[in-house]
Amino acid sequence: MQIKAIQIAQWVDGKIIRGEEDTLITGLNSIENAREGDLIFIRDKKYEAYLSQTHASAVLIAEEPTVPLPEKIVCIIVKNPEIAFIQILQKFGFSQPSIPKGIHSTAILEDNVQLEEGIAIGPYVFIGKNTQIGKNTIIFPNVYIGDNCQIGESTCIFPNVTIRENTIIGSQCIIHSGVCIGTDGFGFVFDGKEWIKVPQIGRVIIGDNVEIGSNTCIDRATFGETRIGSGTKIDNLVQIGHNVKIGDNCAIAATTGIAGSAVIGNCVRIGAGAGINGHITIGDNVTIGAWSGVAKSVEKDAIVSGFPAVEHSRAKRILVAQQYVPELLKRVKDLEMKIQKIENDCV
Amino acid sequence: MQIKAIQIAQWVDGKIIRGEEDTLITGLNSIENAREGDLIFIRDKKYEAYLSQTHASAVLIAEEPTVPLPEKIVCIIVKNPEIAFIQILQKFGFSQPSIPKGIHSTAILEDNVQLEEGIAIGPYVFIGKNTQIGKNTIIFPNVYIGDNCQIGESTCIFPNVTIRENTIIGSQCIIHSGVCIGTDGFGFVFDGKEWIKVPQIGRVIIGDNVEIGSNTCIDRATFGETRIGSGTKIDNLVQIGHNVKIGDNCAIAATTGIAGSAVIGNCVRIGAGAGINGHITIGDNVTIGAWSGVAKSVEKDAIVSGFPAVEHSRAKRILVAQQYVPELLKRVKDLEMKIQKIENDCV
Amino acid sequence: MQIKAIQIAQWVDGKIIRGEEDTLITGLNSIENAREGDLIFIRDKKYEAYLSQTHASAVLIAEEPTVPLPEKIVCIIVKNPEIAFIQILQKFGFSQPSIPKGIHSTAILEDNVQLEEGIAIGPYVFIGKNTQIGKNTIIFPNVYIGDNCQIGESTCIFPNVTIRENTIIGSQCIIHSGVCIGTDGFGFVFDGKEWIKVPQIGRVIIGDNVEIGSNTCIDRATFGETRIGSGTKIDNLVQIGHNVKIGDNCAIAATTGIAGSAVIGNCVRIGAGAGINGHITIGDNVTIGAWSGVAKSVEKDAIVSGFPAVEHSRAKRILVAQQYVPELLKRVKDLEMKIQKIENDCV
Repeated sequence: MQIKAIQIAQWVDGKIIRGEEDTLITGLNSIENAREGDLIFIRDKKYEAYLSQTHASAVLIAEEPTVPLPEKIVCIIVKNPEIAFIQILQKFGFSQPSIPKGIHSTAILEDNVQLEEGIAIGPYVFIGKNTQIGKNTIIFPNVYIGDNCQIGESTCIFPNVTIRENTIIGSQCIIHSGVCIGTDGFGFVFDGKEWIKVPQIGRVIIGDNVEIGSNTCIDRATFGETRIGSGTKIDNLVQIGHNVKIGDNCAIAATTGIAGSAVIGNCVRIGAGAGINGHITIGDNVTIGAWSGVAKSVEKDAIVSGFPAVEHSRAKRILVAQQYVPELLKRVKDLEMKIQKIENDCV
Repeated sequence: MQIKAIQIAQWVDGKIIRGEEDTLITGLNSIENAREGDLIFIRDKKYEAYLSQTHASAVLIAEEPTVPLPEKIVCIIVKNPEIAFIQILQKFGFSQPSIPKGIHSTAILEDNVQLEEGIAIGPYVFIGKNTQIGKNTIIFPNVYIGDNCQIGESTCIFPNVTIRENTIIGSQCIIHSGVCIGTDGFGFVFDGKEWIKVPQIGRVIIGDNVEIGSNTCIDRATFGETRIGSGTKIDNLVQIGHNVKIGDNCAIAATTGIAGSAVIGNCVRIGAGAGINGHITIGDNVTIGAWSGVAKSVEKDAIVSGFPAVEHSRAKRILVAQQYVPELLKRVKDLEMKIQKIENDCV
Repeated sequence: MQIKAIQIAQWVDGKIIRGEEDTLITGLNSIENAREGDLIFIRDKKYEAYLSQTHASAVLIAEEPTVPLPEKIVCIIVKNPEIAFIQILQKFGFSQPSIPKGIHSTAILEDNVQLEEGIAIGPYVFIGKNTQIGKNTIIFPNVYIGDNCQIGESTCIFPNVTIRENTIIGSQCIIHSGVCIGTDGFGFVFDGKEWIKVPQIGRVIIGDNVEIGSNTCIDRATFGETRIGSGTKIDNLVQIGHNVKIGDNCAIAATTGIAGSAVIGNCVRIGAGAGINGHITIGDNVTIGAWSGVAKSVEKDAIVSGFPAVEHSRAKRILVAQQYVPELLKRVKDLEMKIQKIENDCV
């Protein structure tokens, strides 16, 4: 594929401020890997310095660069370079992986499975009874979907996923490999001698446009529902306990654990490796730093980090100060000796 | 299903102290989701306050509530409300998910697999040679069980589980989706140039009545056995290294990691996200707080937390005190200046 | 199998310094589990004390033991006891698990899959179009391999693994169960209202002789490649983000997370549960302690630990000092009172 820079600029409502409009663009790439013919983008000002050494032929950028540029590079000014880049990627014909439409002969569909048109179901898929699947949804090989589930339209379920009975998943979702949805929550009562299992009879409800990373686990509710709101993105190896409620458009990075019955608002961002206590509430638009331990509820719009998590600038001060405790011990010892001396002298 | 409150009270040896004995109970639910006709339970005193607003028709509770109650609610006093609730749930016909008895035509059983009666083996299951499976055990689709394994009676293995060769699993166990049992331990020797693999020729032995959460990994022993005692419950995404020994009736919450050759006693409780060092011993009845890092052996009956884990009340004092280090730095600086001044004045 | 101690010594270029050369060795075992007839090894001096109580018939050891020994035990001095032990294990006929050569009738191979000789492909395996697999590679049941992948020679892929399209894996690799390779990186742009997915069009390239533990996740690159160098060993439940580059002969312990675009050198050792920030560089031969949080780049040969990770001996001092903050608070308070008193007295 060969597209002139001017054409690309028009696709994304961009303005060429430097370089030849007729420069041919043949691919898209990252700054560091770009070769002649490639289009790149600059996410923000701090990456601008890398521009000087790129081999790319064109760059999408939010404002005129202030660094020296390679001789022939075409600069296209756009409002949001990253989103423009994604749009161009799609024009260049990038598409998500897929499998052939239809139901593979080895897929096993139990009684009363209801499928809409345009569905692709791969080999060795198992779908339980009464489950409904919306149109154009893709189910890769070796996926298990239990009884009485509902999966929306144009959702993609990658290989080796397990979706247990009664789960509801919306449309345009992407469920990556190894994900377990609707497995039992960790609920037991100790009767003085042994642990008695609390039957987990609730379910999981996932909204539209949700992405769930590989090997992430989302437990069903004890009663009622574990909920993931529309537009929320969850990374790999995340643990979501029973009865957790997560709002819309959240982003949760890898290896985070959210304990049972936590309630997370909309547009919450959680860094990697964080731990969220059970039965607490995280308000809308909260940002939680990576590796934080959130023990208590957090008010909306707050930025917190640390262990236990507190307001982020405070957390940074604490983290820095804690590095000086060894010296502090010594300084306090010195002070004690000096005071001792002063006191002795005064006697 | 419609059952009178008096009947329910009789099932669990309970006593109605308030409300109409003939009140009809039609379902079970949590306090917050309960509707008319539902039975709920109060685990302990601190949840009692929620009772005032419930729509439930009856409540199982350990002692007479002291809060104002909804007009018609029936109070049933029982010794352990949660266990009584579980018993009633079973009377109401709740049952774990299952699949049809028999061996699905697509299941592959290698030579000399020995199956007892009442077994259910789903589609696309693979069972290696010489493996024995006890009666009424259920194996969901896409499970792999290697050669020479022994699985007990009435155990349930959910989809996409991998059980490697020579593993022994007891009766009444529940193995959730994505679990890997008997995979190689992480054993390598650096020969000065590269890592030489130490063959992992041991196995995994799991007792009766064990539950293992989704995507948890239990490595085989280098030699001998990795052991999980009867009645132990393990949550999702837990890592259990080679040669770990875990006693009976432990509870291990999600995303915890237990390093190789650690020895954990009976009735140990480990909070989420904890890390247990290799080659240490945790005594019986120890409680380990969530996100603790346990570097050294812990005596029986201890409650520990923190990083490194120490006695819990001490750990709490440390955690709180550490929040004040920024101010401490400032206070010490002030003291230093004052001393300096005093010393100068004394000269 | 029965081998004389002298024969075993000859296999590994060892020297018998104690006991009967003709002692029959019938198996290999660990110190604690060894019975009569077993050979054991002592990794280093600190395990020597256990020798006094072993039931083993012979021991591989680097130098003459200084503890009292069981009466009849044969001592074989070798340069590296652990590596000698592995060599003897292989002589004793230990071999990795396998499946029959050939392609199982239920395996599904899409168009133009290229297989070399000696391959074993198990039941219910799916291999996408144009994928190439080298000779003697073993693919266990229920594995999914996408389109356009390349797998080297004598690599072993255990059950329920997912390898997404365009992935390259070298020779002599071991990929344990539940591993996900080439799943999408966690890349999204917030457009002010919702998260827009950044298509992940890169791939994963894994060198030779790499081992990857169960349920570990390795994301594909956004562009270009996520790379794992030859000889690197990765434990269970590890998260490796998009565009991460890991060098040769690294060892990465369980539940560690490495964020996107981190660059890890050769021979780096990372303890369990560590977190490595995105976009940083870890030099060759660095050692990172378990549960460390590495926020900034680390120079080659450094040993770091702690949160945030700093030079290891410093980190230990900080960790120890932090345990005394509660007392420090009290001491500072005492000092403040004394100073107050001195100041008052001086007026």
